[in-house]
Amino acid sequence: MTPPEALIFDVFGTCVDWRASMTREGEALGQRLGIECVDWTAIADAWRGQYQPQMETVRSGQRPWVTLDTLHRESLDAVLAQFGLDDVPPAERDRFSEGWRRLDPWPDVPSGLQRLRSRYLIGPNSNGNIALMVRLARWANLPWDTILGAEIAQGYKPQPAVYLRSVAALGLPPAHVMMVAAHNGDLRAAAACGLQTAFVPRPLEHGPSQATDLAPNGDFTLVATDFNDLAAQLGC
Amino acid sequence: MTPPEALIFDVFGTCVDWRASMTREGEALGQRLGIECVDWTAIADAWRGQYQPQMETVRSGQRPWVTLDTLHRESLDAVLAQFGLDDVPPAERDRFSEGWRRLDPWPDVPSGLQRLRSRYLIGPNSNGNIALMVRLARWANLPWDTILGAEIAQGYKPQPAVYLRSVAALGLPPAHVMMVAAHNGDLRAAAACGLQTAFVPRPLEHGPSQATDLAPNGDFTLVATDFNDLAAQLGC
Repeated sequence: MTPPEALIFDVFGTCVDWRASMTREGEALGQRLGIECVDWTAIADAWRGQYQPQMETVRSGQRPWVTLDTLHRESLDAVLAQFGLDDVPPAERDRFSEGWRRLDPWPDVPSGLQRLRSRYLIGPNSNGNIALMVRLARWANLPWDTILGAEIAQGYKPQPAVYLRSVAALGLPPAHVMMVAAHNGDLRAAAACGLQTAFVPRPLEHGPSQATDLAPNGDFTLVATDFNDLAAQLGC
Repeated sequence: MTPPEALIFDVFGTCVDWRASMTREGEALGQRLGIECVDWTAIADAWRGQYQPQMETVRSGQRPWVTLDTLHRESLDAVLAQFGLDDVPPAERDRFSEGWRRLDPWPDVPSGLQRLRSRYLIGPNSNGNIALMVRLARWANLPWDTILGAEIAQGYKPQPAVYLRSVAALGLPPAHVMMVAAHNGDLRAAAACGLQTAFVPRPLEHGPSQATDLAPNGDFTLVATDFNDLAAQLGC
């Protein structure tokens, strides 16, 4: 194995625990508005459930590229309606949607990224846009060199352009860059573009009954238990 | 004055001393190849002199957008020919051209940026491409939140798109972003796009006989003696 020169990361699920964090954001909203007897985790799951179908409208060419901030805000209206929460005012909807900028990292992430940063360039290769990613990086203590991903590619993973554009922006051939993710599909798409790959399982991303992505399912360069293990395997 | 939420920076000349650094890179090349009696500062100046005419070929639409790495490498061949240095081998030319990734910061820059970072999002709004800017940031200790500028805009300053695209990527209106530069023309272009502006003079950018940009020449939001003074004026 030739060591990579840069590592690029999936963010939602791989670096940060969106489910617990958005549940907390929902609970805070509920407290502010006096909304009771609502399952905010179910709302977080339903909201995240809109993610792939929404991006597919962009990937398929049905609509021009728009940011994930825009997609999040649009789908929130549908989710609140689904849960009978039509009375949430617009300003509170905006604030809830901005909760995606306040997602907590998995415990190993800040320390693991700091170690990896000592030897490699690091950046997100996420479907999140730059405005979202820079604020999330501040919140979750993610010491990126720069923000890569959907916005600079004007596409959404797993479209090859998102991997190839990030690699090109770093001025490196694909084989010199390693994609790190907790999702097999993301890594298989990266591998198909010639990138190295590292699978890091996040078995609680979807809660205690998660059934997907519990184990690597592909011919990946590395498998690590967490970001500190990844750093150790990569000589940091 | 409404405080900005983000600051974006010119880099070459404003953050880093390209002239002394590229002179040093040239001297090292000369030592490796046993080249004597060459004025490496004159070569640095001639190289930088190609900068605006080259970018103009892109801005005018004469050629499609290419990275500054590419423009630097192309113009080096012309400059070496001009100084009678046709025998420098290609690998050494590549290494010399990569010297633009090893430019030293002005002394106040790393500490000033750290202070500014405590209250504001910060990023370069440079004509340098991402691959160049991330490595320069590592070398010169520039703690950017993300790399903005020419590459994400697919244009070159002072084209309005470069300012407006950076501002849009941050998810902010122009009036909430401050452009920081040592060059009046850069700031006037930013102001015309609605950004706030800060002039920080770098009277030695072009050496001891510099005649341009010694003082602010425009209606700028702030004038600061260096980045630490700027941080103090912005409450950091």
